[in-house]
Amino acid sequence: MYGAIEAGGTKFVCAVFDEAFQIIETTTIPTDDPRITMSLVVKFFKEHPVKSIGIGAFGPIEINPTSDRYGEILNTPKLKWRNFNIYKVLHEKLAVPIKIDTDVNAAALGEYMSGHGKGKRSVLYLTIGTGVGGGFVIDGQTLYGLTHPEMGHILIRPLEADQFEGNCPTHGNCFEGMVAGPAIEARYGIPGHKLGEDDSVWDYVADYIGQACVNFNLILSPEVILIGGGVAQQAHLFPKIRRSFKHYMNGYIDHSVIKGNLEDYILYPKNGQKAGLIGAMYLAKQGLK
Amino acid sequence: MYGAIEAGGTKFVCAVFDEAFQIIETTTIPTDDPRITMSLVVKFFKEHPVKSIGIGAFGPIEINPTSDRYGEILNTPKLKWRNFNIYKVLHEKLAVPIKIDTDVNAAALGEYMSGHGKGKRSVLYLTIGTGVGGGFVIDGQTLYGLTHPEMGHILIRPLEADQFEGNCPTHGNCFEGMVAGPAIEARYGIPGHKLGEDDSVWDYVADYIGQACVNFNLILSPEVILIGGGVAQQAHLFPKIRRSFKHYMNGYIDHSVIKGNLEDYILYPKNGQKAGLIGAMYLAKQGLK
Repeated sequence: MYGAIEAGGTKFVCAVFDEAFQIIETTTIPTDDPRITMSLVVKFFKEHPVKSIGIGAFGPIEINPTSDRYGEILNTPKLKWRNFNIYKVLHEKLAVPIKIDTDVNAAALGEYMSGHGKGKRSVLYLTIGTGVGGGFVIDGQTLYGLTHPEMGHILIRPLEADQFEGNCPTHGNCFEGMVAGPAIEARYGIPGHKLGEDDSVWDYVADYIGQACVNFNLILSPEVILIGGGVAQQAHLFPKIRRSFKHYMNGYIDHSVIKGNLEDYILYPKNGQKAGLIGAMYLAKQGLK
Repeated sequence: MYGAIEAGGTKFVCAVFDEAFQIIETTTIPTDDPRITMSLVVKFFKEHPVKSIGIGAFGPIEINPTSDRYGEILNTPKLKWRNFNIYKVLHEKLAVPIKIDTDVNAAALGEYMSGHGKGKRSVLYLTIGTGVGGGFVIDGQTLYGLTHPEMGHILIRPLEADQFEGNCPTHGNCFEGMVAGPAIEARYGIPGHKLGEDDSVWDYVADYIGQACVNFNLILSPEVILIGGGVAQQAHLFPKIRRSFKHYMNGYIDHSVIKGNLEDYILYPKNGQKAGLIGAMYLAKQGLK
């Protein structure tokens, strides 16, 4: 048996699964005071012993395995979690190999292994929901450097017609500040799922997501771009995103995939809302090696 | 002995070097009709036999070694070179292992091995000259995906005060269209090296380079960003680029390097104008493995 944890900002989803990747048992624990949350996580894995655990976590978090602070949550607005080390607690209490990465890197890995990235060399996974984040896998390895990437905060070009100034507390009108769920809701005080498909806010949002995908393509050249998260459940966005990508790319990249209809290039993840947990399962397997 | 070629748009610099990376012989051949240029390259290496050859080439070029078209120049405006396969010609005539990559990936590799990236896990190398390009190395491997990256063409935010509309034939005001040498010259019809250091064009150019570095940091999180090429020889640009980076990042990345003065984070390459050739030398060594 192996263990997987999708450690999110509102809940921790824990799972125990077998060699065949069949989930045997799961539990969901609220993201509360870290001592309470983690004691429930430990209790679950004491009751269901595993050989290794993979964790896809919210951030910012230290994911460099050579760092003394591996597994430490960094300057999050969740003050109780700031400087709390998830890895250390679990490793002390459970004494099994643990591999920890960002939630989006985990999701990218899951798609690379068994989703729309299967058979490809590289996968970019974006989540657009309460926040925006991106993870990248190439040749089976997730990307991190000085820190883990923070792809949600790249600069995009605000459109003149869009009066919204953006609501990222740090950058105002960065990518996340213009397209995350709260940014969509902030425009008219109406959440995205209550807006009609023909509302102009979707044109703006799709334009910005297309811009971001152009920059991601030009920098990483991923073999596929998967966009998950609550906002991405608006399926009508995808044709608009592909049009925006085409518009800003303007034919520059001379590759059949980029010149094609993009339906297999920019799409919703195969693992859907389970992308993070499935990714954590593969991290558990990687952790054992 | 090993061989290295910096295959540029105006000239091919060929070098023969020994185990200790001492250059024994070099020659410079104009980038003319490919049959003429390549016959002179072959002649040089027939006279100076080598065990393997590394090439850092202008692009776009196919650099995926599993492709049938490995080493083929793609849709370049240099019509005589379009669909010409550099790898094939050299491999047929010289029968030694050849490793080919983009000029900027080669330069990034050279800095990773023996320049300002030595001892680091990842290096981003930008060149800002006649054009703009970027190469990335992580754990000793250069990055490519569907195609090689085209980092020079990312979207940046044009400043209102900057009246220039950009001169990228495909994108107008993309990064390259606003900061490459011809874009600087196009503003007043005066080449950059004849403009005073206090000309406002440098403020615009540094602002855009800082914006681009923010996006590169947020997506790749490189451990160092090296900026070479003709425009980067304007040393006074670097403090302005670092200020722009700080401005747009606005303290978001909580890492001592990013919060510091950036003098060791955004800087001119150690290998200077030899970054490409030195990188090709390391490609020759990689090619032998």
